[in-house]
Amino acid sequence: MKKIVVIGGGAAGAKAASKAKRLEPENHVELYTNEDKIAYSLCGLPYYIEGSVDDINKLIVRTPQDFIDKGIPVFLNHEAQEIFPEKNCILINGNHIFYDELILALGAKVNVPKVENVHANNIFTLRSLDDGVNIKNKMLQSKSVLLVGGGYIGIELTEAFIKNGLDVKLIESKDRLASDFDDDFSKIIQDIIISKCDTHIEPYFSRKIVKFEVDEKNNFKSAITDKGDEIFADFCVLATGASPNVEVAKKSGIHIGSTGAIYVDTKMRTNYKNIYACGDCTEAYCIITRIPTYIGLGTIANKEGRVAAINATSDEYFENFDGVLKSTITRFFDYTISKTGLTYKDAINYQDRINLVPIYATITKKDKASYMPNVNDITIRIVADKRSGEILGAQGIGCKDNISQRINTIASALKSRATVDDLLHLDLPYAPPFSGSIDPILTAAYKLKEKLNK
Amino acid sequence: MKKIVVIGGGAAGAKAASKAKRLEPENHVELYTNEDKIAYSLCGLPYYIEGSVDDINKLIVRTPQDFIDKGIPVFLNHEAQEIFPEKNCILINGNHIFYDELILALGAKVNVPKVENVHANNIFTLRSLDDGVNIKNKMLQSKSVLLVGGGYIGIELTEAFIKNGLDVKLIESKDRLASDFDDDFSKIIQDIIISKCDTHIEPYFSRKIVKFEVDEKNNFKSAITDKGDEIFADFCVLATGASPNVEVAKKSGIHIGSTGAIYVDTKMRTNYKNIYACGDCTEAYCIITRIPTYIGLGTIANKEGRVAAINATSDEYFENFDGVLKSTITRFFDYTISKTGLTYKDAINYQDRINLVPIYATITKKDKASYMPNVNDITIRIVADKRSGEILGAQGIGCKDNISQRINTIASALKSRATVDDLLHLDLPYAPPFSGSIDPILTAAYKLKEKLNK
Repeated sequence: MKKIVVIGGGAAGAKAASKAKRLEPENHVELYTNEDKIAYSLCGLPYYIEGSVDDINKLIVRTPQDFIDKGIPVFLNHEAQEIFPEKNCILINGNHIFYDELILALGAKVNVPKVENVHANNIFTLRSLDDGVNIKNKMLQSKSVLLVGGGYIGIELTEAFIKNGLDVKLIESKDRLASDFDDDFSKIIQDIIISKCDTHIEPYFSRKIVKFEVDEKNNFKSAITDKGDEIFADFCVLATGASPNVEVAKKSGIHIGSTGAIYVDTKMRTNYKNIYACGDCTEAYCIITRIPTYIGLGTIANKEGRVAAINATSDEYFENFDGVLKSTITRFFDYTISKTGLTYKDAINYQDRINLVPIYATITKKDKASYMPNVNDITIRIVADKRSGEILGAQGIGCKDNISQRINTIASALKSRATVDDLLHLDLPYAPPFSGSIDPILTAAYKLKEKLNK
Repeated sequence: MKKIVVIGGGAAGAKAASKAKRLEPENHVELYTNEDKIAYSLCGLPYYIEGSVDDINKLIVRTPQDFIDKGIPVFLNHEAQEIFPEKNCILINGNHIFYDELILALGAKVNVPKVENVHANNIFTLRSLDDGVNIKNKMLQSKSVLLVGGGYIGIELTEAFIKNGLDVKLIESKDRLASDFDDDFSKIIQDIIISKCDTHIEPYFSRKIVKFEVDEKNNFKSAITDKGDEIFADFCVLATGASPNVEVAKKSGIHIGSTGAIYVDTKMRTNYKNIYACGDCTEAYCIITRIPTYIGLGTIANKEGRVAAINATSDEYFENFDGVLKSTITRFFDYTISKTGLTYKDAINYQDRINLVPIYATITKKDKASYMPNVNDITIRIVADKRSGEILGAQGIGCKDNISQRINTIASALKSRATVDDLLHLDLPYAPPFSGSIDPILTAAYKLKEKLNK
């Protein structure tokens, strides 16, 4: 029997707590969070704002009562203040809580530009259910929005706002949308997004906000950029990414990794043997490069929470977390964009460090047998290492589910360090409604194979 | 420069001929077929009959002229009669054709039950464009059909006929539809199919036809089964599978494998060094078991044709065909069924031969985040080996594209001999419109992991 204290009620914390209890029902597991809710889906917020999800409460996956019913006490609105690793003790809301094992699932906080008036009224971030409700309410009374950030959340919110009849003014510090993709590939994505929005989007690239202007009631009025534009809108949403919550860990002597997130080994242990960390507050290893990387995603948080719980529970058996591919996907109207592993740009950045000779092939073809109805285009890029033939990553844009099918397949190949030869021998199920007899993945692999042989 | 003779104009022959020419434009490549068309899609025929494909000619992927334009002479209606391997010669339509390398892509022929009156009018098979046109024309004048065979083609034709307002009487020699799946899994599939067809399907299981009754004009009237039923319908379609065309090869001293198809090594060579075989006339190795197996599919034919062409062309460089997973997929109205690798039943059959301890996990869950619109169920079974943890295969049934995404992903894992641990660490892209934050594959993998640990 152990006392396991979990800090954080997001995907990682919720998973860690329930897994630790389930593995060893004798364990005394406690869950603390500084929020007033636990286990809700942040990823669903754009779809709530858009209208696909009609009730914000549907995004709550599990309630505190669900945990209490499993024998896990839940403490809401409890702020972790300091950890005393040598004493196996954590200070929470002024009380010293002792533990045998501590699991930190501290999550992430939104990046807020450090500029004048950023905390004015009608400037929103999107990191909680309340944020979602507030943005939606404001949207329903507005005609225009200033959206800051052209990553996935920015793209998802653009769809939500356009569908609700708003004009979107979008500021992005990079020179394009979806800048995680290779430059020319993100250009394809961007052209589709902008043409789909027609006149309802007004993009401002390569710009940073230097100041917000407010009215006499401290309401947002406009943003001033470093290029001197003044951009007006009814309200503003900051979709400028998130950073790991590490302050408590850092001041308590827990190591912070090169990415700025909490350092963990593959067993999700921090530098203290009985302090684990998981989810958005930690860094993770890239499966391909083994280089630490930072990505905050519910899927990864879930897996890490599971591994932390297993290792915190057992003294005999260890589970490893195998790492991440930074796989992502999003929908934009009928389009789907997705990536996994390294882009060509990533591979070039890493080439000296891990001895790569990156090459890539990009193909556009039909997603189904060409004679079938509702055939759509699909564009896929696969990146490989010329020397070893190993696949390094893939990017895709297409319609509806035709992309998830392909990027998932390549993510699976990447997990096993598959080569171009492995890809071109994939025996993928084929029928005319699902693919051509030569799947786009194989077409790209054949093209890569020719480049390998050159 | 070599003279390469290709026999067969299906997927394998067409691919082999064009690849051999493209690799080495100096090669003299000739293509012979006993049909009057080449390179058409058999898989598209059910969708032509159904009506999704409005013109039969759309199923023609490439015409003889396309090949002639590439410098490949095409000989239609040319029957290969005998091969003289010692003389590097093949007899075709009475002429002796000499070759340096011979590629046999002889295809398969439909299995026709050897019963009285099976060649009567209005009893059709489905193996050519003409068959497709004839069945469709007959269907459009009919109210009922007797369909023999409850495999994929039988299921696809059932959809086509029901959509066109016919009543379907279906005879299957096994005790259920989709009998390639595990018994209880095919039961799920069958229940869905039968309930979807409502009163318009009348299944007769565990029955063989012993005789067809005909009228005075030798038109099909009814079928008599071994259980004594007499089943009447306006016409009959035999969807009773296909067998490899091996007669010419066999009588010429080319080895036939244990499956009844032409034996080939992984380089697609027969027992004669300069005679290759590929496509539906050959057997293939299962990637998982390395045991020879027979499956006739366009995707595999395509890959084998490519490998045969590379090896026939080059004396220096060899390409291997890595084998098959017998991956298949089909649509039935809004449902998708698919499988890859071994079923549990297959694994049990092979367990002594290749040292397996088969286990499986079956899960049913939502295909998307539960709060999203249009959420559907997905049922997946994953089979693994308890001793090694290796994945052996998967079966799935779900809606639209939610299954292809998962079975393709597992097919990719199988190619790399992934383990249960690999599966549960897959970093699959996640967003609410595409999956829950724990993909059904991971849920099944977690369940398998528990069984592994027991």
